[in-house]
Amino acid sequence: MSQKSLSDLNVCSKADFVAALANVFEYSPWIAEQAASARPFAGVNALFAAMKAAVDGAGPDHRLALIKAHPDLADKTQRAAGLTAESSAEQNSVGLDRLSDAEYEAFERVNNAYRAKFGFPYIVCVRRYTKDSVLCDFELRLRNDASTEMQASIGEIFRIAALRLDQLVTADDRLSVHGRLSTHVLDTHSGKPAAGISVVLTELSDLGEARVVARAITNSDGRTDQPLIGGRPVPIGRYELMFAVGTYFAGRGVSLSDPPFLDQIPLRFSVSDPEGHLHVPLLVTPWSYTTYRGS
Amino acid sequence: MSQKSLSDLNVCSKADFVAALANVFEYSPWIAEQAASARPFAGVNALFAAMKAAVDGAGPDHRLALIKAHPDLADKTQRAAGLTAESSAEQNSVGLDRLSDAEYEAFERVNNAYRAKFGFPYIVCVRRYTKDSVLCDFELRLRNDASTEMQASIGEIFRIAALRLDQLVTADDRLSVHGRLSTHVLDTHSGKPAAGISVVLTELSDLGEARVVARAITNSDGRTDQPLIGGRPVPIGRYELMFAVGTYFAGRGVSLSDPPFLDQIPLRFSVSDPEGHLHVPLLVTPWSYTTYRGS
Amino acid sequence: MSQKSLSDLNVCSKADFVAALANVFEYSPWIAEQAASARPFAGVNALFAAMKAAVDGAGPDHRLALIKAHPDLADKTQRAAGLTAESSAEQNSVGLDRLSDAEYEAFERVNNAYRAKFGFPYIVCVRRYTKDSVLCDFELRLRNDASTEMQASIGEIFRIAALRLDQLVTADDRLSVHGRLSTHVLDTHSGKPAAGISVVLTELSDLGEARVVARAITNSDGRTDQPLIGGRPVPIGRYELMFAVGTYFAGRGVSLSDPPFLDQIPLRFSVSDPEGHLHVPLLVTPWSYTTYRGS
Amino acid sequence: MSQKSLSDLNVCSKADFVAALANVFEYSPWIAEQAASARPFAGVNALFAAMKAAVDGAGPDHRLALIKAHPDLADKTQRAAGLTAESSAEQNSVGLDRLSDAEYEAFERVNNAYRAKFGFPYIVCVRRYTKDSVLCDFELRLRNDASTEMQASIGEIFRIAALRLDQLVTADDRLSVHGRLSTHVLDTHSGKPAAGISVVLTELSDLGEARVVARAITNSDGRTDQPLIGGRPVPIGRYELMFAVGTYFAGRGVSLSDPPFLDQIPLRFSVSDPEGHLHVPLLVTPWSYTTYRGS
Repeated sequence: MSQKSLSDLNVCSKADFVAALANVFEYSPWIAEQAASARPFAGVNALFAAMKAAVDGAGPDHRLALIKAHPDLADKTQRAAGLTAESSAEQNSVGLDRLSDAEYEAFERVNNAYRAKFGFPYIVCVRRYTKDSVLCDFELRLRNDASTEMQASIGEIFRIAALRLDQLVTADDRLSVHGRLSTHVLDTHSGKPAAGISVVLTELSDLGEARVVARAITNSDGRTDQPLIGGRPVPIGRYELMFAVGTYFAGRGVSLSDPPFLDQIPLRFSVSDPEGHLHVPLLVTPWSYTTYRGS
Repeated sequence: MSQKSLSDLNVCSKADFVAALANVFEYSPWIAEQAASARPFAGVNALFAAMKAAVDGAGPDHRLALIKAHPDLADKTQRAAGLTAESSAEQNSVGLDRLSDAEYEAFERVNNAYRAKFGFPYIVCVRRYTKDSVLCDFELRLRNDASTEMQASIGEIFRIAALRLDQLVTADDRLSVHGRLSTHVLDTHSGKPAAGISVVLTELSDLGEARVVARAITNSDGRTDQPLIGGRPVPIGRYELMFAVGTYFAGRGVSLSDPPFLDQIPLRFSVSDPEGHLHVPLLVTPWSYTTYRGS
Repeated sequence: MSQKSLSDLNVCSKADFVAALANVFEYSPWIAEQAASARPFAGVNALFAAMKAAVDGAGPDHRLALIKAHPDLADKTQRAAGLTAESSAEQNSVGLDRLSDAEYEAFERVNNAYRAKFGFPYIVCVRRYTKDSVLCDFELRLRNDASTEMQASIGEIFRIAALRLDQLVTADDRLSVHGRLSTHVLDTHSGKPAAGISVVLTELSDLGEARVVARAITNSDGRTDQPLIGGRPVPIGRYELMFAVGTYFAGRGVSLSDPPFLDQIPLRFSVSDPEGHLHVPLLVTPWSYTTYRGS
Repeated sequence: MSQKSLSDLNVCSKADFVAALANVFEYSPWIAEQAASARPFAGVNALFAAMKAAVDGAGPDHRLALIKAHPDLADKTQRAAGLTAESSAEQNSVGLDRLSDAEYEAFERVNNAYRAKFGFPYIVCVRRYTKDSVLCDFELRLRNDASTEMQASIGEIFRIAALRLDQLVTADDRLSVHGRLSTHVLDTHSGKPAAGISVVLTELSDLGEARVVARAITNSDGRTDQPLIGGRPVPIGRYELMFAVGTYFAGRGVSLSDPPFLDQIPLRFSVSDPEGHLHVPLLVTPWSYTTYRGS
């Protein structure tokens, strides 16, 4: 799926416009068709608003059809039969293509329970979740009534669409679909940023194994050159940041105990706002440290 | 082995004195015999000094015999053949009676290497170590020359003897053989000690599995009723303290994110001074925390 | 006024008992007289309870007379005419014998306003206040109605009496009339208590000049040998603690900027609970520090 | 003195070039004259390098004449007789035009001592200092020998010239003559930046009165819209930042003691690097705070 510029989309034929945006909403080209008539768009936010308006203006049957056009999460039969390329990439991003048997069973159980209760598939914008937090959300939503779930499903479909549109269309403006997770290490023993510290970000899991998400070395400003997570939503979930401060202080010739009081420092925290900027700094000496949710 | 009062030991027959203290130094009653003539003792420190003087005054052959009277660490044959009750309890305290196969092989390897190099067993005061830190010490000491190791062995024998004597003899004074590990949780969100927080202390291991050492709930002063480790040496090694702060703040009705930014807070640190007092406090809000080596 | 033991007071003549305790309540020996009949007392708390019961059981006229038996605060005519030794010592403790003209006028103004409104003097347990916080309390209480102020005056009279009784009578138990203000300096640059740091405690004032309350040097445990304030109530008010950390770190040969980033560190805080234990620690490196209300 | 663009200076007549830059070095147009022949300059750094090269290449007599062309600091006779506009503005920036009698005498004393010892005036780039730190520098430099002071004077003249040139000439590049002092307030009680906090920056003085340098209110990011000091060197000296956190937390409806434990929080620190970026953040709850030299 190649990127299109908004300026091209504003002037191309309606057929090309629809073809380009057909799968922004899963298997539902009618939404692009309706939005086409509102061209030209000042920006991608305006385009997205027009597509959302088409959904909001559709009757209950159309909305239900839109919901039913989505695949089950982690369904092996559907995977074999073929998801859209977009669905497939999204599900893989969170690891749904490589579930353990236990995980697969957990997903199958909630999928079946959800379908049995509501008659349509559980839809969630998986790029905003980890495997663990998807299952957790699943359990919570199973308790809702059907009308609440119709609403919730449309909300998730909009989030999925926004991320697809963001990847597909280039424009002067951007949709607010990306968050950021960053860190900063201050060496309060020397009063300077701590350079050269190894930082490892791990996604924690109750279900399966912890998974390393990012590895970095702090630069001369005590930061990582790139955000630990950036340019995408920061998945809701539990994380651990590990800082190799023992090696750092030993390398600076600082007098330490043997073994050093602090060596690998773990910071555990949860992400709750995938589109926000979460900053988790570390102020550290060989004998103390402080962390906080920064901004 | 029942406790004796120093006042009784000061006045009993020499034979009874020697019988009571025969195994303070492993299979070496001659040390108690020599010390007996210096009675009466003002305190247990004076008694211990007299026993050390007997060792220090002995010739090289006697000192070597004393060293050779000790068993190998974690040696299954010797365990079957019978250790002194004291040796057995000491080795069990650090888990040497329940080694995994991999651990057993690691110990056997260094034991053999040590005996091959020096001609006498590796002696260490195991109550001051964890399985991991014993092996680490073992590797370091293997690099020494024989004379350094003779010295080191006598030093460790003195530490073993001091702990045995401390358990065996009651007196007005105490030997300085006990350390302490404590914590304290301050809730800097409400400005009060944090009561009712679950605290779990785990001994970390590279070789085998982590092992829970202590569990406690903080009291109204934010402390644990008993030290996490106390009344004995705090073994050299790596530890993790885990504080269940998410449950605590949720229970106080504090507004949190979902999931809470902080839930289980791990503090990882090493112990390097088994006879010292190590205080590891936590200052915490739902959004920040600080720890430091306190006193 | 010499100290009496409770055991003596329990067995002496009623006349001696009354003479000893006559001024625990200002110029009101009838309270001691009534309490005398409840002898013997198990402790000083029981004695105090009996005296309070006498006041609580007295009719409105007696209670008003008790209130009126008290002097005005900082009244020069009354000071010349003679206060009880107790009143005089109490007023002097907070500096009411050395008011500036501006302060004197401020006190005269509120005294007159209070008398004009209620017909009896403003009574406060001055040992629990600073000059500034007394005036602040005065202004607040001026807004009350007469019945609330009768109640408040009796409450303050009880506090005054408790402190007088605490100084006068020795017993196995103690009245809870003393608070404590303490500090602790942890050097998180070296991981040890900071010894030899100069600490100065100043009482801040809006009205007049700041006043040094205590000077101390931290000991080897990073604490002061005595509490900064102890053995008495910690007066409600605003304070500043000043820590000479620049000199400390320079003396340890730590590499600093010129001039040092941190030199004299001021911590400003207020006391609100005179009978509580307020602990104000400092965790400090040459480049950072943390303080908190400890316990 | 109106600003010139470097491109104009590169092409104008030599006479105009010299006229424009005559007082970049005090009363010493010969420096601009020599630099003129190296035109055109790629940037203002290249221009400044050419002017410094003219000074460095001049003989000892010329260098001494350059030094002697400078006025005494805070000399009333010279002020009446007329300083260059540049000198006058520089001396006024640090308050040398409004000295108290005691301060004036202190300056006169060191000026005279310096002239008596070296035969030329004490020169310092006053924009990099406060009144107090100038006097402190003065005392230190009085102890030097003449050759060291010749060197030091030329160094200070370069710093003065760089600041004059920076103000006078616009170009694509900038001289590195500006520092920055900034702050940031994180409310770790709510886990958010603290908006609406009043911040006052005061320059502390041993000689005279403290002087308010900047007042600001924190914005929604917990920062001040402008740096507290920026677009100029941050004068070497002692400072106090005062944060009105009591009002802030009271305004958020947080439960506080009466009076609040923390109200006005003072942070005292020194600046040692006028061209650096000094960041002094505050992490604060109603019961605790942390500060550190950030970056």
